[in-house]
Amino acid sequence: MTGVRVAGVGLTEFGEHAGRTGRDLFAEAANVALRDAGVDRERVEQLNYGNFMGALAERQSHQAPLMAEAAGLHCPATRYEEACASAGVAVREAVRAVRAGEVDVAVAGGMERMTNLSTERVTESLAVAADELFEVRAGVTFPGAYALMARRYFDRFGGDQTDLAHVASKNHTHALDNEYAQYQREVSVEETLDAPTVASPLGLFDACPVTDGASALVLVSEAAAERHDLTAPVAITGTGQGSDRAALQDRETIAETPAARRAAEAAYDDAGITADDVAVAEVHDCFTIAEVFALESLGLYEPGEAVGAARRGETTRDGELPVNLSGGLKAKGHPVGATGGSQIAELTRLLRGDHPNSEWVSDAEVGVTHNAGGTVASAVVHVLEVAG
Amino acid sequence: MTGVRVAGVGLTEFGEHAGRTGRDLFAEAANVALRDAGVDRERVEQLNYGNFMGALAERQSHQAPLMAEAAGLHCPATRYEEACASAGVAVREAVRAVRAGEVDVAVAGGMERMTNLSTERVTESLAVAADELFEVRAGVTFPGAYALMARRYFDRFGGDQTDLAHVASKNHTHALDNEYAQYQREVSVEETLDAPTVASPLGLFDACPVTDGASALVLVSEAAAERHDLTAPVAITGTGQGSDRAALQDRETIAETPAARRAAEAAYDDAGITADDVAVAEVHDCFTIAEVFALESLGLYEPGEAVGAARRGETTRDGELPVNLSGGLKAKGHPVGATGGSQIAELTRLLRGDHPNSEWVSDAEVGVTHNAGGTVASAVVHVLEVAG
Repeated sequence: MTGVRVAGVGLTEFGEHAGRTGRDLFAEAANVALRDAGVDRERVEQLNYGNFMGALAERQSHQAPLMAEAAGLHCPATRYEEACASAGVAVREAVRAVRAGEVDVAVAGGMERMTNLSTERVTESLAVAADELFEVRAGVTFPGAYALMARRYFDRFGGDQTDLAHVASKNHTHALDNEYAQYQREVSVEETLDAPTVASPLGLFDACPVTDGASALVLVSEAAAERHDLTAPVAITGTGQGSDRAALQDRETIAETPAARRAAEAAYDDAGITADDVAVAEVHDCFTIAEVFALESLGLYEPGEAVGAARRGETTRDGELPVNLSGGLKAKGHPVGATGGSQIAELTRLLRGDHPNSEWVSDAEVGVTHNAGGTVASAVVHVLEVAG
Repeated sequence: MTGVRVAGVGLTEFGEHAGRTGRDLFAEAANVALRDAGVDRERVEQLNYGNFMGALAERQSHQAPLMAEAAGLHCPATRYEEACASAGVAVREAVRAVRAGEVDVAVAGGMERMTNLSTERVTESLAVAADELFEVRAGVTFPGAYALMARRYFDRFGGDQTDLAHVASKNHTHALDNEYAQYQREVSVEETLDAPTVASPLGLFDACPVTDGASALVLVSEAAAERHDLTAPVAITGTGQGSDRAALQDRETIAETPAARRAAEAAYDDAGITADDVAVAEVHDCFTIAEVFALESLGLYEPGEAVGAARRGETTRDGELPVNLSGGLKAKGHPVGATGGSQIAELTRLLRGDHPNSEWVSDAEVGVTHNAGGTVASAVVHVLEVAG
């Protein structure tokens, strides 16, 4: 088993890309990543690609070979679909293939086009990630499901809408200088609290936007990094995945997300670290309450303690543990099938010092990413470290 | 790196399962496989699951955790989508995970529901595996695409509809005693030639049917097989994958399928065998012409030589190289996302001696499976061997 390095990262701007095809977006991200890595595309031995709703948004499944072609890659290409964690599992399997010595150089990432659909169609298309038989037919959509989880959390642990508004406001502040972010604008706590209710207790600004975009990483073995003299200071040292029952009604509790806890424990174990070592995190804040669940599942906070973290200034950029310095899904945007790759791209930039927000984590050696599918029926956690 | 054994196989009947859910079908296959293996479900560490058109057929994506739940598996679950090769890549990645020592016991397979859709909707839903921009908008569906490939093949190498009718007739004969087959009935060469034309030169009986069904395999490391005293005489010794440009118009030739050739070369290399060692094959005959392409890509025939193989009696059950003893996609059926797992289940049964057609290959030591996506923009090949 060899170590795995992130040799290059590539992102498109997140936002509305009317008139551009999915393959165009992914090719851009892959090209940026390959250039960033200084790796010839002929050296790429495997493409792991995440996409969630291509069948519905573009009438295009079987996207992996299309994306390989668009990016000029001549290698086996595989699509992973795990709802909003699609790119997370794509990266995870690429990490495992590299460290097992199956391949030396892999590209992993994902793409989603969503803004071409009407708001109603987007909500309906996203809902295929929930349990069709036991949730969707009963009228559950994701804003509704996360609202149920938020209510249960508040009931059990306390916390309120103002706590969540601080999460939104923090992540918007973090996105201000991020050139890839969909929203580079401040959103105040008051503005968030005044926004229309989507599903009580969640308002419009508690939800991430609808986004087009793509992400790509070039992952290489340590041996290949050395052989080709690549600058790849960040290593992926741990990977973990967890699954849970899909329908909220089938879970023992909805005030926590055990799939993410299992993913985190596996990833920490894999990397040989503990939650105490983590200095920075990119987590799956599809809704503000989801960031709270993430931080507790990651063991960064005890159950019930994370809801006030942003309000107390602990997870802000100048806090002890900056969370979502990219802006998160909330402000940077959430092109579903690309998000897991984007989180690792952003954390890599943060750790190697070329992210607009790197200054806030200049001493950080260890960071984690947390990517979730549905109401965390799936979760993938990665540990990234500045290599010695 | 450890060897990988097939400890158990499970299949549902292939055919029409009106009124049953996808999770019900997959749970049945997984339960049969676990019982066959004699492995407790608590020992399963990973589920790799193939599905192609759940978003369109059941408005259900993010199926992997649902399927784990239905099968009583408490482990990370991942969905693979690679058109008709979805289960093939799911199995491949499970094989790699087991032999890398990431897990000791994995379940891999897939499921598809299709018969709940109208014929028109099925054709339309299958077409999302082709290139939407450059093929589907121009009116290409899969019968049309394979007809173009057949015409080009005939032009370049010779062969005719009667050759293909022999493939259909052979595979129907092979399915006669297969309890899982959708069609356990003879179809003569004459009947095939007299059937209505679907897309010239292909007629109705040149095409596989529309099928519901599921497949599951229990894959274990050699160490685990020994430790738990499992009866697992068949090993997966080689795996290979290839990708190609999706649209036929973008390929240098459409009279061969280079993605499958690359997959085969990689799998043979992985197993340390050559095509000469192969004694039996299960190949992706979604159309009769596809079996011809498969045999040539696998190196079992020179280009232009496979078209007459069934007619010459070489690939029939009493021939030198029996092909599709299960009945193939043609007669056994083709639940898209399950097929790659079904092929390995059938070949395992053939090699270990408990398949209704095992008598025809009682001396066989090495077999291959060939699973293709779209017009072979994706291909996965596995080598199975009777372990020493």
